[in-house]
This record gives sequence, C-alpha cells and structure tokens, in this order.
Amino acid sequence: MSVELNRERFVETMQEQAEIGATSNGGLHRLALSDEDKRVRDWFLEGMEDAGLSVRIDEFGNMFGRRAGTQNVAPVLVGSHLDSQPSGGIYDGALGVVAGLELIRTLNDRQIETKRPIELVNWTNEEGSRFQPVLQGSGVWAGELDLDEQYASTDADGHTLEAELERIGFRGDESASPAESYDSYLELHVEQGPYLEERGADVGVVTGIVGLTWGEVTFRGEANHSGATPMHHRSDAMVAAADLITQVRRIPNLLGERTVGTVGSVSVEPDSINVVPGTAEMTYGFRDPDAAVLDQAESHVAREASVAGEREGVDVTRRDRARTDPVRFDDRCVDAVSAAASDLGYESTDLFSGGVHDATNAHHVCDAGMVFAVSEDGKSHTEEEFTSWDDCYAAANTFASAALSLANDTE
Amino acid sequence: MSVELNRERFVETMQEQAEIGATSNGGLHRLALSDEDKRVRDWFLEGMEDAGLSVRIDEFGNMFGRRAGTQNVAPVLVGSHLDSQPSGGIYDGALGVVAGLELIRTLNDRQIETKRPIELVNWTNEEGSRFQPVLQGSGVWAGELDLDEQYASTDADGHTLEAELERIGFRGDESASPAESYDSYLELHVEQGPYLEERGADVGVVTGIVGLTWGEVTFRGEANHSGATPMHHRSDAMVAAADLITQVRRIPNLLGERTVGTVGSVSVEPDSINVVPGTAEMTYGFRDPDAAVLDQAESHVAREASVAGEREGVDVTRRDRARTDPVRFDDRCVDAVSAAASDLGYESTDLFSGGVHDATNAHHVCDAGMVFAVSEDGKSHTEEEFTSWDDCYAAANTFASAALSLANDTE
Repeated sequence: MSVELNRERFVETMQEQAEIGATSNGGLHRLALSDEDKRVRDWFLEGMEDAGLSVRIDEFGNMFGRRAGTQNVAPVLVGSHLDSQPSGGIYDGALGVVAGLELIRTLNDRQIETKRPIELVNWTNEEGSRFQPVLQGSGVWAGELDLDEQYASTDADGHTLEAELERIGFRGDESASPAESYDSYLELHVEQGPYLEERGADVGVVTGIVGLTWGEVTFRGEANHSGATPMHHRSDAMVAAADLITQVRRIPNLLGERTVGTVGSVSVEPDSINVVPGTAEMTYGFRDPDAAVLDQAESHVAREASVAGEREGVDVTRRDRARTDPVRFDDRCVDAVSAAASDLGYESTDLFSGGVHDATNAHHVCDAGMVFAVSEDGKSHTEEEFTSWDDCYAAANTFASAALSLANDTE
Repeated sequence: MSVELNRERFVETMQEQAEIGATSNGGLHRLALSDEDKRVRDWFLEGMEDAGLSVRIDEFGNMFGRRAGTQNVAPVLVGSHLDSQPSGGIYDGALGVVAGLELIRTLNDRQIETKRPIELVNWTNEEGSRFQPVLQGSGVWAGELDLDEQYASTDADGHTLEAELERIGFRGDESASPAESYDSYLELHVEQGPYLEERGADVGVVTGIVGLTWGEVTFRGEANHSGATPMHHRSDAMVAAADLITQVRRIPNLLGERTVGTVGSVSVEPDSINVVPGTAEMTYGFRDPDAAVLDQAESHVAREASVAGEREGVDVTRRDRARTDPVRFDDRCVDAVSAAASDLGYESTDLFSGGVHDATNAHHVCDAGMVFAVSEDGKSHTEEEFTSWDDCYAAANTFASAALSLANDTE
C-alpha cells in the first residue's frame, strides 16, 4: 500500500522551514544549536504537537515525536536533520524531516492506522560544521559516541555543546540511549552526488553507504634558498607531495567503479616564494562500498608515497586519520524502498551513498535504509544546492510509502 | 700587491660580532633595527672610530667609515651587512663587514697608504626579514627605492622602519643619496650554495648575479563533497596545481645548467580533508644568468599551467610578481678578485650568485664585484650555516687584496 502526500502542503512546509535561517542567496545558515536552529526546532516542535505526536527531547537534543500503532511492537523511526552547513542549501536534511512530518499529517488526514508506531526524529548536529564530529546526535543515541565527551565539544568561540543545548532550551530529560528497541530506521536525504541525474532516475534506492579511509602524509626534505640551491642539490618536500597528489587522482582508476580518492588539505613550510619547501603535509581519503578496496587504496598510497619520497630524497611519514567500514543496508528496508518507488510509478535506481548519514549510526541499532532525491548537478553544501519540487515530491512519496510498508510489516 | 689579514684578530672579531644576538644553537637572531642590531651597530661604530675612520650615518641608517687616500679621486666602497635572518648564521653578511674592518686595521698596522680612499659600509636591512623588501638600505642609497616609501614599511607589530631607526639612534643626518661618485664596490659574502664545495675551490670569483622571474598561478575548479562526487565529475584545483608543480621541477632541465625553478608557496581552499579543492594557489620562481632563459621559463610555465588546467577542467589565472634582470659584474672588479686569489695561492672558480646581494644595487652606482666564501653543504638562512675559519680567511684575504688593488688603480 503506497501513500502520496499532499503536494501543496508538502511544498509549503519545505518553504516554511527554508525561511528560518534563510540567506540572501536562497540558501540556509542554520548551524547546530544556534539561534536559527532554536527557531527551526521550535517550529518543528509545534508541528509535531499539532499533528498529535507524543514528543520527547533527549538529553542530547535529539527530538522525537511518536504516532501510536495498533500493536504493541517496536516502532519505525523516520527522519533526518534540520541543521545546515554555514552556507548550505534548503534541502540537505530538512527534506527528510519535512517528508516525515507530512507523512504523519497525511496518515492523520486519511485516518490511516499502522501496526507499528511511527516515530519522527530530528537529529542534533548532523553537519559537524559548528561542533565536531559529524552525525553527533545519532552517534550518541546509537552508543557510538560518548555523551560526556560530546557535551564537551566546543565551537570556534569556545562555547561547549552542553552550554549551547541549555541556552536554546533543548537539553531534554530523556536518556540519549534509546529505552526500547526499534524495528527499523528510514531516512530521506538529497543525494549530494550526480548519479540519479546521470542515470535519469526519479528516486534513489540506497543500498548502503561507502566506507572511507583517511590519512595524512608528511614529507620532510630540506628548506633551502631558492636561488642559491641547484636543482640537483634539492630535496623538495612539495614536489614529493605533488607527485603523490597526482597518484591519488589516478589510484581510483585501478580499483573500482565507485572508488574515489581525494587530497583535500595541503600545507607547505616555510611557505615562502623564495624558499625550497622543507616540509609538506597533505591529507588523503578514499571511499568505496568494499572494505577490501579501501585496503588496496591504502597499499597504493603507502607505496606511491614511498616512491615519491625516494625520488626527491625526502623522508615520508604516513598516519591513519579515520576508517569506517562500508554499510550494507538491510534487505527488508532496501526492498521496501524499491517496491514503494515501483508502486508509485517512479523510475528508481540502486546506488551507494558516497557520504555518511545518520542512517550509518541507526544501522547499529536496528534495520536501516535510505531514499535519495535527485541533486541537480550533484551540488551540495552550497547555497546552489537544488532539487526540483517534482523530485522532492517523488522521493518524499517513496519514503512515506516505504515507511508505511515497514510500519505494517510485523511478520 | 696582495695583503693578508691578521688571522687571529680576524677570527676574534668574527667571534665578537657573533656574540651579539647569539642564539643557543650557535646562530644569530639580529633582525634589522632591533635591539640586537643597535648593539652590533654600536660595536661596529666603535670599531670604525678606533680604526681612525671618518664615520657618517645616512638618513636610512647605512653606516660608512672612510680611510683617506693619497689622491683626490673617487673611493672604493667595501662591506656588506650586519643584520641577520630570524634564525640565521654568524657568517651571512657579517663576514664581509668584519673583513672590511680588518682590512682597514691591517693597512693601519702596516702603514699602507692607498691612492683612492677606502670606505667601509654596513647596509641597513639587507635580509628583508623584519621589514620588506630585501636590500633596502642599498636600494635607497642607489636610488632604486624611494626613501619615504621605505620609511613607511612596517614590521609584523606595526612599527615603521622610520620610527625604529629613530628609536635605536641610527637615523643619521646625511642624505641617503651619495653626495659624490664612487669608483667601485666590492662585497664579500658566503656563497649560500654548494658550488665552491662541489668544485673543490677555496674562494669564489663572482661574475654576476642571476636574474629572476616570479609569478603566481591560481587554479579555480569546483569545491565538492569528497565522497559523493565521482572522479569523472571533478574539477580538482589542487590536482592541476600538483601537475604544474611537477613541471616546474622539470623545466630547468630543458633550459640551462644554472637554471633553477621553485614552487615555494602553495595554498588550497577550502582546505578540508573532506572536500575536493575548489581553489589552489601557488607561486613559482625561476633564476638564470641569462634573461632570455627567464623568458623561456615563463613561456613553459604559461603553457604547462594551461595544459594542467585543461586536463582537470579548471580555470587558470597567472600573474607576474617580480622580475629582475641578471647582473654582469664589471671586468675590472672580476679581474681584481681573480688576480688576488691567484696571487695569494688560492684555488678560485668563477661563478654566478644564485641570490641577490647589495652589490646588485651598488652595480647601478659604480663598477661592482663580489667574492664568495665556501658554504658548507650550501646551507644558509639557518643556524647550521657554517664556513671554516680557513675558508673565511681565504675569502677575506682575497677580498682585502682585491680592494687594495682597486684602491691603487687610478688609470
């Protein structure tokens, strides 16, 4: 049984949230636990209460609103996040929360009951822009992050997350660890990549989230006068780094269709036009749906860094920064999304998510799945982020219908 | 006629100056117009007065001390600078000033008269570490830099050069433009490069100073999520920069034996491990004794930058930063140095200076030449800078003898 939302109200609700923290360029500035975040939380709280949900705020500020089911069974959790990047778009996160709220309203309108309770969630600080790390609220909820450590995280002005939660009035009474088990978690999010558009699909059936391996390499040569030092006497750390950057661009071609490799951060010392670089530091990162490919990428980087260092006669140090294993979403969630899209007559395509999402954490607690909406030109984390209302609506209906299906599945 | 300095006193005088602003690692911290610079200037002033020189301080702090000649003809100017890098060595600059003072003392001891006056100079702010640009004192003296503009240059704390000159009591009354013509300028300096050591020479006959061309290149691609953006959708500005950095390492091989090319400064935005670089900026610089080679290097960079940009689909902007033409020292100065080394029984070799020196500016005012002392491992602008007393002494004797020869040359 599929469900279609009230399109006009759905678009209006998207527009309502987009006004809270709106930038002059049509984007959002709604950093976690800022005044803007407080205002969108107040707005969301009122929306949940008006929809008759029983609302709970946990001690980490995660917001839940439950619609009862007809049976005494574990609920289906649906939602995403309302915080934004410093100059973010109006769809990233908010689309999933709004679609969840519209699902509740539509079920209410049509007096549709579900066997399982349906619970709507807005996670605290998904973006990791103001406070680090990313996925903080769902991480604490899933027991992947320690509550007290995360309370102590500070923004650039030295405010702690705990103090800011108190300040905006969203430090709740409830434990951040779930008191009961959940049946499943379903999240709707914009793709933030170009695959749906490239494949001409209306909606994405997310089969998992790629894993990542992050590291950093430091090359140490010898800083020297750029005029007086002949080429054959140089051990130029930046040249070695450039060599490795070029290889990181190439390594994905050796590995897999979905492998990506990036050097995002580079610094050089003494960083003077007139001095041969003595030290160069660079990060690297690879992502792939297959953990074995991440291992291969690390082997390639280690070898190429070593070769680049030898070539310039500079020392090489490599350090691990982060590693997350790929997530494979649970078949019943993936199937529910796929079937919903098909029932609604949408063209769907299976794909891996290239970025992490709160579903990564929820996956540790219960079955999980995701729906992706088209991102025009794959743009995200920018005010230019765009998804047409047609595409938003298709993805929201798929999400709502898959949630409904999970909520009636008590086998 | 050659002259040999009193070796014991020469070494003692080198050691005396090395105590003023000494660092715990055996180097110098004696930034221009700092308290340490004031102390070494006071010490030098006393040395010049004790040696019977008639001392003048000009309005830019350049210090001159003249020993009269027997004829009413233009003087020979000799010296270098007493300021240091933030963590410099004890030889850079000071060697030339001390050798000049020891030349005067030796001539006094032996009651040797010269036809031309010999004038000793300590230039203000050669290093350009605290105030920019480099070669500031000799630049104002030679009319290459504007006095008032240079007075207004500020250090990192916002102090103007003019105020600091006043503070340490070295803003003199005399005009910074020379009131009379000079016959010639001779400078002794450590090589700061490895050529003398590599060629097994005792002393270097500097035939000129390489020219340089400096520029910067900005690559502008598209910042994107490092996980969600497939490799074939990227326009990675840092990959294009890395490509060009690799080419700058290679271009000198295409041009000349003495050509050097350096990328000293690199920056990337947004500089996050998790974001494909949207912008990468880099400097480049080339040096060569031949101006035509500098033009060729610029052509290579323009072409390689363009190719690197096209390869990644990023925009390329190139800007000029600086250009100085190569200097060819005057034959009579070069010959005087070469003959002095030969008369003293030292192995000498002709070479170009890879770095600029005050002689670059003096060359605009009168005939000029330079003597280089061996730099162990070519190290300079570091506390590890080292020249053995044997090598210091050989270069100082060559310098003194060449100066003496010029001072008696009135043809």
